[in-house]
Amino acid sequence: MAHKSDIEIARAANKQPIQEIGAKLAIPSESLLPYGHDKAKVSADFISSVADRPDGKLILVTAINPTPAGEGKTTTTVGLGDGLNRIGKKAAICIREASLGPCFGMKGGAAGGGYAQVVPMEDMNLHFTGDFHAITSAHNLLSAMIDNHIYWGNALDIDIRRVSWRRVMDMNDRALREIVCSLGGVANGFPREGGFDITVASEVMAILCLSNDLADLEKRLGDIIIGYRRDRSPVYCRDIKADGAMAVLLKDAMQPNLVQTLENNPAFVHGGPFANIAHGCNSVVATKTALKVADYVVTEAGFGADLGAEKFMNIKCRKAGISPDAVVIVATVRAMKMNGGVKKEDLGAEDVEAVQRGCANLGRHIENVKSFGVPAVVAINHFVTDTDAEVEAVKEYVASLGSEAILCKHWADGSAGITDLATRISEIAESGMAQFSTLYPDEMSLFEKIETIAKRIYRADEVLADKKIRDQLRQWEEAGFGHLPVCMAKTQYSFSTDPNLRGAPTGHSVPVREVRLSAGAGFIVVICGQIMTMPGLPRTPSAEAIRLNEEGHIEGLF
Amino acid sequence: MAHKSDIEIARAANKQPIQEIGAKLAIPSESLLPYGHDKAKVSADFISSVADRPDGKLILVTAINPTPAGEGKTTTTVGLGDGLNRIGKKAAICIREASLGPCFGMKGGAAGGGYAQVVPMEDMNLHFTGDFHAITSAHNLLSAMIDNHIYWGNALDIDIRRVSWRRVMDMNDRALREIVCSLGGVANGFPREGGFDITVASEVMAILCLSNDLADLEKRLGDIIIGYRRDRSPVYCRDIKADGAMAVLLKDAMQPNLVQTLENNPAFVHGGPFANIAHGCNSVVATKTALKVADYVVTEAGFGADLGAEKFMNIKCRKAGISPDAVVIVATVRAMKMNGGVKKEDLGAEDVEAVQRGCANLGRHIENVKSFGVPAVVAINHFVTDTDAEVEAVKEYVASLGSEAILCKHWADGSAGITDLATRISEIAESGMAQFSTLYPDEMSLFEKIETIAKRIYRADEVLADKKIRDQLRQWEEAGFGHLPVCMAKTQYSFSTDPNLRGAPTGHSVPVREVRLSAGAGFIVVICGQIMTMPGLPRTPSAEAIRLNEEGHIEGLF
Repeated sequence: MAHKSDIEIARAANKQPIQEIGAKLAIPSESLLPYGHDKAKVSADFISSVADRPDGKLILVTAINPTPAGEGKTTTTVGLGDGLNRIGKKAAICIREASLGPCFGMKGGAAGGGYAQVVPMEDMNLHFTGDFHAITSAHNLLSAMIDNHIYWGNALDIDIRRVSWRRVMDMNDRALREIVCSLGGVANGFPREGGFDITVASEVMAILCLSNDLADLEKRLGDIIIGYRRDRSPVYCRDIKADGAMAVLLKDAMQPNLVQTLENNPAFVHGGPFANIAHGCNSVVATKTALKVADYVVTEAGFGADLGAEKFMNIKCRKAGISPDAVVIVATVRAMKMNGGVKKEDLGAEDVEAVQRGCANLGRHIENVKSFGVPAVVAINHFVTDTDAEVEAVKEYVASLGSEAILCKHWADGSAGITDLATRISEIAESGMAQFSTLYPDEMSLFEKIETIAKRIYRADEVLADKKIRDQLRQWEEAGFGHLPVCMAKTQYSFSTDPNLRGAPTGHSVPVREVRLSAGAGFIVVICGQIMTMPGLPRTPSAEAIRLNEEGHIEGLF
Repeated sequence: MAHKSDIEIARAANKQPIQEIGAKLAIPSESLLPYGHDKAKVSADFISSVADRPDGKLILVTAINPTPAGEGKTTTTVGLGDGLNRIGKKAAICIREASLGPCFGMKGGAAGGGYAQVVPMEDMNLHFTGDFHAITSAHNLLSAMIDNHIYWGNALDIDIRRVSWRRVMDMNDRALREIVCSLGGVANGFPREGGFDITVASEVMAILCLSNDLADLEKRLGDIIIGYRRDRSPVYCRDIKADGAMAVLLKDAMQPNLVQTLENNPAFVHGGPFANIAHGCNSVVATKTALKVADYVVTEAGFGADLGAEKFMNIKCRKAGISPDAVVIVATVRAMKMNGGVKKEDLGAEDVEAVQRGCANLGRHIENVKSFGVPAVVAINHFVTDTDAEVEAVKEYVASLGSEAILCKHWADGSAGITDLATRISEIAESGMAQFSTLYPDEMSLFEKIETIAKRIYRADEVLADKKIRDQLRQWEEAGFGHLPVCMAKTQYSFSTDPNLRGAPTGHSVPVREVRLSAGAGFIVVICGQIMTMPGLPRTPSAEAIRLNEEGHIEGLF
C-alpha cells in the first residue's frame, strides 16, 4: 500500500450520509440533528426514549505513559471499533472533541491515523458542531455576570481579590493569562486581577462531560464556586443567578455528536476536558447513549493509564454508574524502547534488550488496571520498523504477567489488521469476567484518597503536603465535600511527578502543591506540578501556513 | 384574533423542512448544508454555479429615525416578502443575524413581530449556525498572533502602545473594555493596554459582510491595519501572516444561512455588522445569492434612512455593484407623534396635529431616498391604537410630496395585510423607473464626502473638524485610501448629532471627533459622538430569568 498522509486518506474517504450511519444504530433520521451532511447531533428526546434499554459492553482503551514516539491510543480505539464491526458486532466508538486553539500553534491532530481514522477531519479540528463555542459563551456569561454584580453594588459581598472564576477563550493566547480588567474609570467597574484559561480547562467543560442530562447540568452549574467573601465563605454560580442561562446556552452542546470512521462505522465525538485539572474523557451522555444503541462501545481516556484510566474508573465510572468489561492497554515497540532508555533518533535500530527494559512501564499499567477488577489485554500498535524479535519480546513479557499482547496492524490495514484483538476482546467481554470496583470508597477521607492513588497506582512511598493543604482538605470535608473523588494533576510522562523518570519508578514522593475544589464538576483537583491552563503559540505558529488553496481545500492545518 | 406574544406565535409555527424552503428557490438539497431540520447554509459551490444568472429586483426597507415607540422595519421586511409571495411573486428576504451577548442584558429580539416573523426564533437569538463564533475566533486569532509576534522578538517593530487591533467577545462585558494584558512576568509577554469590543463591532464582521467570495475575504483580511510602528507606518494583518488562517476559520461562516418566515417563505439571515462604526447591512453574499435565485429580494438597513439607507447606497451598493429598484420607508403613527413632541406615555390618545408635526421627519427621509434616484413608498405599519384620522394625516402628507403611503397590517394579519404594498412595490420595480446613483463619486476628497453627507442628508450647515483630523484624512489620501467611502458613526435618533433633536432639524453643525481607517472593510469611519463598542449588562440582566422549563423550552429569553 502506497504511503499516504492522514489527511490524504481522510479526504479520500468514501463517507456515507450521516443518516445512514445513524441507521446502523437504529437512530431514526428525525432524531438526528444534522450539521452538514456528515455530522449530526443525537436528539435529547431520542436519548430519553432509550434510557430503559440494557447496556452494551464497554471497552476502555488506555496506554502506557506517553513518549515522543507516540502510542496511537485514538488510532487503536478507532481500529478496534472497526475491527469489532468487521467480525459482526454492532460497535460504536466514543472519543473526545479537539480544541480549536492549539491547532494554530502546532499542526492539528487527526482523530486516529492511517486507515483507522474518524472523519470529517477538518471540521473536527475547526468549529465542528460548535460545542466548545457554546462552552466558551456559557463560561464567559458567568464571568460577565460576576463583574456586573460587583459593579451594581456587590450585594453578595464578593471579595474582588478572591474571584476564582476566570474567563476562557479557545485560543493559545499567553497575553491573556494574567490581566487587570475593569480599568478606565467608574463606568467600567472596579479594577481587579483576572485572566483567561483555554476553553478545555473550563469547569463548564468538565461539568458538561459528567452530567447525565440537562437537569443535572443545570444543578452542577449552580454548584460552581465563583469566589469567596472576606470571611472566606464561598459564593456560588447559583447566587449570581447565571445557572439557568448557562444551561440554555449549553442545551444543544449537551447532545452528543455522531460522525463516522473511514469504514463508515458510527463514532460519537463529544466533549474534551483536560486530562490533568479535569478527568480527560468524552461525555457521560455520549458513552451512555452509545451503550444503549450499540452492543459494543469502545472509548478512551486521556494520557497514560496512571492518569487516564484511573480517572475513568474513579471519576467517570463512579459518577455515571458504568464500568468497563475489558481494558485495552496500547503499547508500541518504539515507546517500549524509549522507556528502556533509547533516544528518539535511535529508534530505527533493533534493540530487543531496550524493549525488555521498557516493558516494566507496561507491566505496571497492566497490574494497575487489573486492580480495578477488570481484565486487560495489550494491543501492540505495529510500526513498520518494528522487528519480529522486538514484538515477540513484548508478547513474552506480557504473557509472563498472565496477560496477553496482540499485534495490531489497523494503522496500515484498517479493520483487517485488528481482527485478532477484536475477537479476543469480544470473548473476554462476553465472558462476564469483569468484577469492577473503584479504588477507594466515597467515605474515605480526601487525603487518604490521594494517598491511595499515590501508593497503589504511582507506587510512591509518601504524599507530601503541608499543613495548609491538609487543613483545606479538612475544611472541605466539614463543608460536605468529603465524599468527592480526587482528580490528580501531574505530569503524564511518568508514574512519578518527575517527567524524566521513565519506566516503573518506586520509592518516590508525591508533593501536593495546591488543591482546588471543582464543586460543580464534583471533584477535588490535586495539583502535583506545574499545570498550564492557557498555552502560548510557538515562534512560528502553524497558523502562518494555514490557508485555503485554489480548490477551496484547507492547507497547512495538518 | 386573540393576542399572542411573538414567541407564542413563533413556537406555534408550522415549519417546513429546510429542504422544501430551498426547493422554492430551486436550490437542490445537496447544496444545502443543514443545521438541524430548519436551518441550512447555501453551499459556496452552488453560489458560484448561479453567478451568471440575471438578478431579480431588489427592494430596500428603511425607516424614519427610530423612536422608543418602535417602527417595525424588520417586521415590514418580513411582511413584504410574504406579501410578494402571496401575490404570486417568487420573493426572498435578506436580514441580519442577531448578536448573542445583548440577549443576556435585555430580552432577545424577535426577527420581525406578530404574524410577520422569521423562525426558528430561539436559535436565531442563540448560537444559530455559529457564524458569530467563527468571527470571534478569527478576530482573536489575529490578536493572539500579534502578541505572539511581539513576544518572540517583534521583528516587525510594532509599537506596543499603538496596537489598534483589540480582542472581541460576543458578550456584554464592561469589565473587558479596558484591560492591561501580558502581566505576570517574562513568560507572558510585554505588558500593554488593550481591551475587548463586542463581536458585531469587529472589522472582521464588516469584512465578511462586504466580501464577494473567499478570495476577496482573504484579501480584505490581509488589508487590516493592526497597529503602527514608532514612525507611524502601518502594520498589516498580512505582515502577521494571519489572513490565511482567518479565512479558513471563516470558510463556513461565509455561506449564507437560509431559514423561513411563518408563512414558509425563504429568508436569508446572514451577517450583522454595527450600523454606526460599520455599515449595518446583511452580507453582500446573501443579497447577491438571493438576487440570483429569487425574482424579488426584500432587504433592510440598520437604524433610520439617514444612517442605514445612506450606507446601504454609498457603501454596500457601491462595493457590491447592486442597487435597489424601490425603497420602502417604514413609519408608524406612534413614531410620528413622538417626532411631533408627544411623550411615550401619551401615545394612546388621538393627536392628528402631532402626527402632522412629526411628518417632517418622514418627509426629509423621502426626499433623501429619492436623491439616490430610487422611487420611495411609505409603509404605515399599523398599530391597534391608530385612528383613521391619524393614518389619513400621514397619507395626505406623503401625497403632498408626490409619494404614496400605504397602510399595512402584516403584524396582525400576515401577508394578507400587506398585499396593497406588495402590489404597488412590484409595479414600481417592474417599471424600471429607478435610476440609481451614489451620493458622491470615489474621486471626491474624504472631507468633501463627509460634507456631502452632512449637508445633503443631515441638512447641516457645516462639518467641524480640527486640523489633526483634516491632516489625518489628507495622509490617508496620500497613502492611497482616498477612494474609500466614508462610514458615519452618529446618533440614530436624529438627523443631527444631538439625539434629542427630533423632527427635521436644520442649521446644525456636525462635529467630527475622530476618524478611523478600516482598511480591510474598505471605509473610513467618521465618529461624530459617543460610540460604545462594548455594552454592559443592566442591574438586573435578563439572564437571571433565562432557564429551561420542564418541557425543555427556553423561558425568559423573550
